[in-house]
Amino acid sequence: MRIEIICTGDEVLTGKIVNTNFSYMAPKLEDVGLSVHWGTTVGDDRDSLLAAFQLAATRADAVIVNGGLGPTIDDLSQEIAAQAAGVALVLHEEWLERMEEFFSRRARTMPPNNRKQAMLPATAEMIDNPIGTACGFALDIGRARFFFTPGVPRELRRMLEEQVIPRILARSGAPASIHLKRFHSYGLGESHVDQLLTGVEALDPTGGVKLGFRAHYPQLETKLTVRGTDMDDVHRKLAPISAAVRQRLGNFIVAEDDQTLEGVTLAALLGVHGTLSVVETFTAGQIAARLAHLPKAEAVFRRGVVVRDFGELRHAFTLPTGCLAGEMTQAATEAVAQAARAQTGATHALVVLVELDEGADRIDLGGTIWIGIATADRTEFRRSRILGGREWVRLGAVELGLDCLRRFLSGLPVVERIDFEKT
Amino acid sequence: MRIEIICTGDEVLTGKIVNTNFSYMAPKLEDVGLSVHWGTTVGDDRDSLLAAFQLAATRADAVIVNGGLGPTIDDLSQEIAAQAAGVALVLHEEWLERMEEFFSRRARTMPPNNRKQAMLPATAEMIDNPIGTACGFALDIGRARFFFTPGVPRELRRMLEEQVIPRILARSGAPASIHLKRFHSYGLGESHVDQLLTGVEALDPTGGVKLGFRAHYPQLETKLTVRGTDMDDVHRKLAPISAAVRQRLGNFIVAEDDQTLEGVTLAALLGVHGTLSVVETFTAGQIAARLAHLPKAEAVFRRGVVVRDFGELRHAFTLPTGCLAGEMTQAATEAVAQAARAQTGATHALVVLVELDEGADRIDLGGTIWIGIATADRTEFRRSRILGGREWVRLGAVELGLDCLRRFLSGLPVVERIDFEKT
Repeated sequence: MRIEIICTGDEVLTGKIVNTNFSYMAPKLEDVGLSVHWGTTVGDDRDSLLAAFQLAATRADAVIVNGGLGPTIDDLSQEIAAQAAGVALVLHEEWLERMEEFFSRRARTMPPNNRKQAMLPATAEMIDNPIGTACGFALDIGRARFFFTPGVPRELRRMLEEQVIPRILARSGAPASIHLKRFHSYGLGESHVDQLLTGVEALDPTGGVKLGFRAHYPQLETKLTVRGTDMDDVHRKLAPISAAVRQRLGNFIVAEDDQTLEGVTLAALLGVHGTLSVVETFTAGQIAARLAHLPKAEAVFRRGVVVRDFGELRHAFTLPTGCLAGEMTQAATEAVAQAARAQTGATHALVVLVELDEGADRIDLGGTIWIGIATADRTEFRRSRILGGREWVRLGAVELGLDCLRRFLSGLPVVERIDFEKT
Repeated sequence: MRIEIICTGDEVLTGKIVNTNFSYMAPKLEDVGLSVHWGTTVGDDRDSLLAAFQLAATRADAVIVNGGLGPTIDDLSQEIAAQAAGVALVLHEEWLERMEEFFSRRARTMPPNNRKQAMLPATAEMIDNPIGTACGFALDIGRARFFFTPGVPRELRRMLEEQVIPRILARSGAPASIHLKRFHSYGLGESHVDQLLTGVEALDPTGGVKLGFRAHYPQLETKLTVRGTDMDDVHRKLAPISAAVRQRLGNFIVAEDDQTLEGVTLAALLGVHGTLSVVETFTAGQIAARLAHLPKAEAVFRRGVVVRDFGELRHAFTLPTGCLAGEMTQAATEAVAQAARAQTGATHALVVLVELDEGADRIDLGGTIWIGIATADRTEFRRSRILGGREWVRLGAVELGLDCLRRFLSGLPVVERIDFEKT
């Protein structure tokens, strides 16, 4: 099954907007076992569009075209699709009615130029867009089936998942059921995880499970694409491999599927009716910003305190005499955590203090990270060192702090060596 | 001058990494008056690469190829370039020496497989890469001049700006000097700014200035691309147009060129030897996170306080009796600002309190934003309302708060209606 993607539009071609639709579609197709063989980007230009469609029509089995379905004169996809297929553009009465309803539900009259959006090539199969006025459609050009999709990301995403991918899968003769299982880990590099997971695919002797990774520092996503005859078959194949991944990556798995590290942490706090205060320095509010805005965080997040000078914490909290006056120590970190918890009335406090190296930013600039976690009857401490420039240290400290809190709340060891630290 | 870009690599084609190199290159070319006509993405596959090179060779005047210059077996650009041009691959002695130096400076021995990076097509012109081992090169294939560049973003960026763009400009016969002037504004939508700037290009009667925009909510970038015979000519043409843009957009310009809103604000505070404390709620640390990590912020940023429940501020600060006990008011906002300033010992305090609407996230969910700024002898207040869902409100409140502080520090009115608010 040879698949191509054609992205259209001057804004994408000139880089005025980043082509996130391509980088959304390609992995979505990979996730169900399909591969993109060729990507093309052209502007709102008749000659370029026609040439792009004709070239893809000679090479591909399926082509996804994105953009150019709007009501304005520079939206040319239907017109050029009809031309490439050698058929007429005809008014699609059903879609016209749908659009008129769409506007009347919003107490508006449909502007005349929207009528253009109901003009489809005569041989087109309509593809529903339940959330917009751009009508999707499919038709054959040359040897390929073309699928035309809207440029608005949320309309594209819904149409791709609900309408286009099932049609392509049906044509590809792939097994009926495909499922993507994802594990999010923190603290292990991609090559390390790859090595830890050597051979897991073979735990399904039918070869129905494919392993892949997606790294976005500081986290790594491990993906298992499972194909089966039905969902029971999929789950049967997946079960031993999921169990092996959980066992081999162990404490480093911070979340699965649509969960996030911060969501898991918030849920753990909600589960114990906990409240949280956070003290941070060079991360400068980024730890609070991961947690405090989430739905339900209003019941959990008590207070965040950001300082750049450690000494300022002596004004923010009442601390033991001499605390933070000299060299940074474990005792001082723990004292800040205990004070932050008690003096803000929270059940839990997380303290992440970063001593950034002196000097201008450079690729090997580092930071020493002092982490304290306190409840009324327990205090944990972790020290780490990360190298890689200001922003790298900052991102790493945010993730390390959140992960220590997750481990604390899950009864896992707070101190466990990670690949990114130099200690 | 017809320019094409070919991006190569399985990681880009499968969407495993987002193709930021394309969205970097296209606007960089636009900025100097060049346009990309066609974009192609192919994997590390001999047939696809050869077909992509051959197609571009029949259509384009200049082609930029990105990626595939590394030392591993899936890096195929030199080999396929030689094949497409019908010439042999030969060892480039100069680059081999450069690589050996590169490794010896780092006290390492060059691995044998790096030798592959010095194999170039016989007719290639070497293009220097001062910061990596991937050798850039240019050669003719068909009617087009091809420029081969590394996939590592920082290597690509340097090579594109210093080596590739000057060569393409020289071939295009464009005027020798081109300059990009940028204005960053906050509070006016793109169509509003477009309308305010109607006719500014015509202030240069030679037609040497081109106006463009790049929107990234909540800010808008206004770009002037100026062509001239030399830099004096460029500056002569730019001066009246820059003056007109500054006059028409006035208080809404937050920064120019490489400046940022937060950088301008920090510089203004440094200029008055000021110190700052920030109090925020639903923005949840994002305002602090824009400012407090910047170089030199350690001398300015005194304290940030994040809460989700307004009442918690009564514990964080000593406030007048009854303050924050009932309906939110201007007086309460101002009292928090005054208390935050005085009780943290800062010269300035910025308070941004967001009352988010009840209910699940939806596209028209809104928030009321209460902003207070205090110094020892002056207090300013602004109330606003933004609709657009949780994340939209959050981003808008961060920017509005920072912009109010910028205006305060610049002696501009803190309250001036913006296009994004519903009040």
